[in-house]
Amino acid sequence: MASDWALVFFCSFTQVAKPPCAVCHTLAHAEAGGAVGPVLDELKPDAARVAKAMRNGIGAMPSYSAVLSAEQIDTVAFYVSTVSGR
Amino acid sequence: MASDWALVFFCSFTQVAKPPCAVCHTLAHAEAGGAVGPVLDELKPDAARVAKAMRNGIGAMPSYSAVLSAEQIDTVAFYVSTVSGR
Amino acid sequence: MASDWALVFFCSFTQVAKPPCAVCHTLAHAEAGGAVGPVLDELKPDAARVAKAMRNGIGAMPSYSAVLSAEQIDTVAFYVSTVSGR
Amino acid sequence: MASDWALVFFCSFTQVAKPPCAVCHTLAHAEAGGAVGPVLDELKPDAARVAKAMRNGIGAMPSYSAVLSAEQIDTVAFYVSTVSGR
Repeated sequence: MASDWALVFFCSFTQVAKPPCAVCHTLAHAEAGGAVGPVLDELKPDAARVAKAMRNGIGAMPSYSAVLSAEQIDTVAFYVSTVSGR
Repeated sequence: MASDWALVFFCSFTQVAKPPCAVCHTLAHAEAGGAVGPVLDELKPDAARVAKAMRNGIGAMPSYSAVLSAEQIDTVAFYVSTVSGR
Repeated sequence: MASDWALVFFCSFTQVAKPPCAVCHTLAHAEAGGAVGPVLDELKPDAARVAKAMRNGIGAMPSYSAVLSAEQIDTVAFYVSTVSGR
Repeated sequence: MASDWALVFFCSFTQVAKPPCAVCHTLAHAEAGGAVGPVLDELKPDAARVAKAMRNGIGAMPSYSAVLSAEQIDTVAFYVSTVSGR
């Protein structure tokens, strides 16, 4: 977790979002092994797909619009889309 | 926790350092209420003092030199020295 | 300019704000030597004072409300107030 | 340039590296239109390739090992590899 920007991504995924993404999703880059929702390393969603799911919720996943700013949602979306499956 | 740089400070203090600073210290800005070590909001240490304690350990507090990089220690030191007591 | 958060502060002060703060102000931490406005290392303003000047403008200094987000103004204000005069 | 982490990437590419990457390379995400070296939006290099070129230099491009830390080189490499061609 050397760089600060990497820390921003990591903490957004594992701690800042409530409930944390890591509770339900697997994403190796974030050392996350949640087994409730889709495995992000397999789904490899693009940023627009992640952001839409976070804004509106999808299936059992709640909307994060009241929890995170639009900018924070974009941060998570950029992060997930760039590191998933690597 | 609007800005990313603020998130870097917050996460460094509450999560990245192991054990986390917040477990033992009180620092209102970090929503930390630990009661084991000195209350940082009262001690108001400067950055050099924080960094020295983190590098070498002091009293019951362990050294963080094996856990954090020199740069990460400086980040925590800058953070604590600028927000303590505000 | 080791840490990313320090880079955020430095670039906000010297490049992102238009016109850049560094053109008019002296702030040693940002390697800025502007001689048009007050020397920030001497003025040592608190964050609220910096933010107010940036939002509303003051004297010959223009408002930055149309150029920077509220969050970016807070970033510059935090930065200037914590490093000025050190 | 809303997020701080995006600012870190942008400033690293356009200002911190000396000479700046943007002087020689085109990368739309960084608003960079240099025409000396390869167009990064077409080359779409992965992070390892960018980091290697920056560490060792390649052709007319100098090594950045004396200018940037290993961590800063990794930051630029991650940035270029994730935004090129988008």
